[in-house]
Amino acid sequence: MSSSQIPVAVLGATGSVGQRFMSLLDNHPWFKVVALAASDRSVGQKYSSAARWILDVPMPEYARDMIVVPATTDAVQAKIVFSALHNDIAKDLEPQFAKAGAAVCSNASSYRRGEDVPLLLPEINADHIHLVKQQRINHGWSGCITTNPNCTSTGLTIALKALDDAFGVKKVFAISLQALSGAGYPGVSSLDIMDNVIPNIGNGGEEEKVEWEPRKMLGKLNGDKIELADIKFSAHTNRVAVIDGHTVCVSVELANPTDPEAAEAVLRNYSAPESARELPSSPRPAIEVRNEADRPQPRLDRLNGKGMTTVVGRVRRDPILDLKFVVLSHNTIRGAAGGSIYNAELLVNEGLL
Amino acid sequence: MSSSQIPVAVLGATGSVGQRFMSLLDNHPWFKVVALAASDRSVGQKYSSAARWILDVPMPEYARDMIVVPATTDAVQAKIVFSALHNDIAKDLEPQFAKAGAAVCSNASSYRRGEDVPLLLPEINADHIHLVKQQRINHGWSGCITTNPNCTSTGLTIALKALDDAFGVKKVFAISLQALSGAGYPGVSSLDIMDNVIPNIGNGGEEEKVEWEPRKMLGKLNGDKIELADIKFSAHTNRVAVIDGHTVCVSVELANPTDPEAAEAVLRNYSAPESARELPSSPRPAIEVRNEADRPQPRLDRLNGKGMTTVVGRVRRDPILDLKFVVLSHNTIRGAAGGSIYNAELLVNEGLL
Amino acid sequence: MSSSQIPVAVLGATGSVGQRFMSLLDNHPWFKVVALAASDRSVGQKYSSAARWILDVPMPEYARDMIVVPATTDAVQAKIVFSALHNDIAKDLEPQFAKAGAAVCSNASSYRRGEDVPLLLPEINADHIHLVKQQRINHGWSGCITTNPNCTSTGLTIALKALDDAFGVKKVFAISLQALSGAGYPGVSSLDIMDNVIPNIGNGGEEEKVEWEPRKMLGKLNGDKIELADIKFSAHTNRVAVIDGHTVCVSVELANPTDPEAAEAVLRNYSAPESARELPSSPRPAIEVRNEADRPQPRLDRLNGKGMTTVVGRVRRDPILDLKFVVLSHNTIRGAAGGSIYNAELLVNEGLL
Amino acid sequence: MSSSQIPVAVLGATGSVGQRFMSLLDNHPWFKVVALAASDRSVGQKYSSAARWILDVPMPEYARDMIVVPATTDAVQAKIVFSALHNDIAKDLEPQFAKAGAAVCSNASSYRRGEDVPLLLPEINADHIHLVKQQRINHGWSGCITTNPNCTSTGLTIALKALDDAFGVKKVFAISLQALSGAGYPGVSSLDIMDNVIPNIGNGGEEEKVEWEPRKMLGKLNGDKIELADIKFSAHTNRVAVIDGHTVCVSVELANPTDPEAAEAVLRNYSAPESARELPSSPRPAIEVRNEADRPQPRLDRLNGKGMTTVVGRVRRDPILDLKFVVLSHNTIRGAAGGSIYNAELLVNEGLL
Repeated sequence: MSSSQIPVAVLGATGSVGQRFMSLLDNHPWFKVVALAASDRSVGQKYSSAARWILDVPMPEYARDMIVVPATTDAVQAKIVFSALHNDIAKDLEPQFAKAGAAVCSNASSYRRGEDVPLLLPEINADHIHLVKQQRINHGWSGCITTNPNCTSTGLTIALKALDDAFGVKKVFAISLQALSGAGYPGVSSLDIMDNVIPNIGNGGEEEKVEWEPRKMLGKLNGDKIELADIKFSAHTNRVAVIDGHTVCVSVELANPTDPEAAEAVLRNYSAPESARELPSSPRPAIEVRNEADRPQPRLDRLNGKGMTTVVGRVRRDPILDLKFVVLSHNTIRGAAGGSIYNAELLVNEGLL
Repeated sequence: MSSSQIPVAVLGATGSVGQRFMSLLDNHPWFKVVALAASDRSVGQKYSSAARWILDVPMPEYARDMIVVPATTDAVQAKIVFSALHNDIAKDLEPQFAKAGAAVCSNASSYRRGEDVPLLLPEINADHIHLVKQQRINHGWSGCITTNPNCTSTGLTIALKALDDAFGVKKVFAISLQALSGAGYPGVSSLDIMDNVIPNIGNGGEEEKVEWEPRKMLGKLNGDKIELADIKFSAHTNRVAVIDGHTVCVSVELANPTDPEAAEAVLRNYSAPESARELPSSPRPAIEVRNEADRPQPRLDRLNGKGMTTVVGRVRRDPILDLKFVVLSHNTIRGAAGGSIYNAELLVNEGLL
Repeated sequence: MSSSQIPVAVLGATGSVGQRFMSLLDNHPWFKVVALAASDRSVGQKYSSAARWILDVPMPEYARDMIVVPATTDAVQAKIVFSALHNDIAKDLEPQFAKAGAAVCSNASSYRRGEDVPLLLPEINADHIHLVKQQRINHGWSGCITTNPNCTSTGLTIALKALDDAFGVKKVFAISLQALSGAGYPGVSSLDIMDNVIPNIGNGGEEEKVEWEPRKMLGKLNGDKIELADIKFSAHTNRVAVIDGHTVCVSVELANPTDPEAAEAVLRNYSAPESARELPSSPRPAIEVRNEADRPQPRLDRLNGKGMTTVVGRVRRDPILDLKFVVLSHNTIRGAAGGSIYNAELLVNEGLL
Repeated sequence: MSSSQIPVAVLGATGSVGQRFMSLLDNHPWFKVVALAASDRSVGQKYSSAARWILDVPMPEYARDMIVVPATTDAVQAKIVFSALHNDIAKDLEPQFAKAGAAVCSNASSYRRGEDVPLLLPEINADHIHLVKQQRINHGWSGCITTNPNCTSTGLTIALKALDDAFGVKKVFAISLQALSGAGYPGVSSLDIMDNVIPNIGNGGEEEKVEWEPRKMLGKLNGDKIELADIKFSAHTNRVAVIDGHTVCVSVELANPTDPEAAEAVLRNYSAPESARELPSSPRPAIEVRNEADRPQPRLDRLNGKGMTTVVGRVRRDPILDLKFVVLSHNTIRGAAGGSIYNAELLVNEGLL
């Protein structure tokens, strides 16, 4: 390990999002994976045996012979701990790691609503990261917990931020067409999705997340509290036969109505806050606007900006509200593992590790 | 031909919708196909050679050896002419057939907006069929033209009718996930839709149809005119990897807001006007309401009521408007060929042939 | 129940094959479902609640309110018991039912290799059913066990039978492209098969079945024993993104080489033994031969003959052996539930119940 | 252009294989694209307008603003000309470019059977490239034509070469499951392949290629002639719902039969001829052998070795011949554009430009 590299670990390393963490951390300029943890039946095995690899990029070499350890603070010693744990397990374990001094960058939903837990998309609300100071005081932790939002909230909220800054967003309809990788592995049965659409996600709960999480991320940090943004959301979530990449059809009402051209300009020119602009995982650009009548499309646009860019298209007038458009975001990169890594980079950059 | 059977013809019989006409007219109790027409390169061939059959039910026996004729009033002599023609061709040919005395029941969009042309979904606006009387006077035709709406408007408008009668509909957001068969054959390239979503239909125009056609069908027949319903629509249309069955996510604002249970009851109890209730193609039931959290689904529900029933599910409160729900309709049966046939049956039943 | 109807039961009624049994037994002219059994967690529930229905035809009405019972001889009393059980459970339970007097018509593989157990495709080896007489003597059963083969062996063996009768089959290469429904539900993860092929089935064992089962079915019944056919098989099995319908690419060496035209004629004219020819589930025709360069195809041809017909195409010379061709068979109808029902009909017809 | 870079052109640059050429030539260490040609309707447009980009990697920046020119020797001036032309057009145009002095590296099939035209897979028959010397004499050309084989022959022949060197190959059964990108764009209709298999490729001809091309490539260069290898092939080709990556199920008879372990060792240790071993596009490794029971799989293994590696798995005994196994190869990288580029690199390396 180069002296300047920070030791990191991945919890839940064998799952769908865990694999994406392992892949994105390959040759990371700042971070070096020193431990990977998974469930009991994998412990003691080489990662190459324990993980049923499902990404279309090969398993990174560094990971193949690493031995899976249990997800305990004894077995996992790292400054940053990336969590791809299931929500119920995350709820128990993440505070233990924070207490033990690790910065937990979590993809789980367990603590997203915590008052002192930043729910971060660095390109739009990097300042919210300072909530961790209060969090440390509240809990007496030397470590901390940061979270990234639900994969469907991700691209949606980034696009809304650009519009909100310029025109004020008041109401939002968001109808998603979500990819299969969002359900983990084995996730959705092929018999359920071939030649089909499922007009809901899992056992529900997804729509509530999409209707709440953006309000926190678009909210203002006021002292040590977030004031939720005063925006009304209505979400409808669907599962479609796409491997990666969530598409969201959005209609918005604005405080200061504008035309599609002005909205496109604002989206295209959107720039992340300075602290989040030049990090290794910063999306380049933050938002890409496409002008074709049939874009963005998941298969063609999900890897733009290495899967970190939010892609917007079909910006046009809405006959009922003001504008409608389409947002695409890679759900396991920008919307999950890549987002958590970006959060970790922000922590480092802000000296909060 | 039994003495009581009415001779009918299919124009554009080799295409995707044309094949569905041929299939649905197999053993029809009232109609007998006496002619089928297609483009020049098919003329003179047996139907079994001319059509590249793409339905998953076999080509009906009666059709195999019929010889394809040109789509002219000389070659096609039938009381009812079903039109699965492309819009530009339909525009020229359909009036010729109406003039020659045929009742043209068209799936093309060319005349849907005609002031004296009924745009019909018999289970909701059977009375609009009487527009053909004025149409005959206007043009001096002994035949007539009737139309059915765009396949995405179909299920949407049927569900809205039940709600409109009971509560008054004021605003509608409709986001579709449309099947591949709606694009005809060869239609959408596999490379464009595998592992993908296309957030628009064809070269556009679909959303305008969905925003206008329901207003005509939900309008009142006042003397010899339709007064468009005063409802605002916003549509977003998507293509997904589904063979048959259009799913639409709908949010509505009501004049008299209600709760989901009352709305479900109204939908479930909806009954077609008497003249359209007991026809051979009448959907049984007109609307089916499902209570599961993840239904309707195209692969599981599109064939309900022999593909003629509109299936509604996930009726729930909308945080911005009043209600949201999902509508599913078979796009080439209820939304195309089956719809035209149902229209023809209504014409017969009303003594308008 | 009409006095002439035979009471039957379905074991494993909630699974993929179990659902197909329930569907195919709807309005069966001879059989009436009086009991359905499934695993403990379903017992006591209505079938409509217990089964997550995955067929694209609706759940039959008769089944919706039936209460699931445990798969015991006390709870299930029927003359014929259809078994869609997992192999390990089938191994224990099926003999109990046979002992209790039921004719077990099983889709499980547990007893296919039993010396006194008929492995049946009635259209080719109806005479093998007489093995049950010896079986009853051997075990002292009043009931019996009959089996149908692996879904991939099914269409393959039927086509081979026609050729073997006429020309003698010596060697067979069989490469399958198998549908997802063959793996049951939830079966294959969508992430494993979207945009993909899996060049093996399950955890293996499928190829051994395809290399052995046809030898038993093409064997001669000699007294109370089957002499395995002296044919060499080499099988390679693949899973592909198809919902229903197994495609098999076959090359054969013949004892008396022939040309493709003669082989096609033999296949087309193949007729089931008389005892199996006019049963309710008899395929009509037994074998269909197609002449197009690109048929059979699962989506277009799997429902031929109500899913019971074996469809053959592309009969041509093989540069190494003698002939090559393609066989298609519906894997959950002819290759599973429909096959077991056909076996039961044969038992009845032969007076062996 | 760096002084050491060689100017190259792409003919047929807007199609499926043409796009792959443009993508693979981005940042090529030796080659610089100076011209791109396509059909008349694209001429004069920017490449970004003319090409409907279908790859899931973004269009390279260098290409976006290049202007499409006609495919004439006047308009296209380059030392190396990559041809992704349709066969009938290639037949006319490629000799014109060879005459004008260009080294044509073609993916078209028009000249693959030419006696003085090398049909190349550099990792197995790099020496065949010397045929171009005789070709130049025969035609008086300063340029030349080299070809790469059909995409299905590619991986198959590479695997066979390793086995042939060690054990002698006598007979080969090859059954393919081919990807959609092999049919070009728009290529296969989604309605033809969703939930389906097509048991043939295009209008035929594919199987003949797979049965002949490997014989030339596995043949010996004797003076200025290739002696076709004395191997019998039987091929069956299928289209499946996979975007990229051809899977081939292979059975072989060997002159010196061996066991699977020895065969695996030979495949794993196979090394390209020295002249083809360290080129920019040389596959690393040439052949990868996998030991899992269900690999290779197109989605997981097609990008191994940057899409240039041939992946083999399931090496096992064949009950009729000697061995069977599965081969996977990326059809538009190793099997098309990447193959032509590798051929060009070999030309340069051998001083034959």
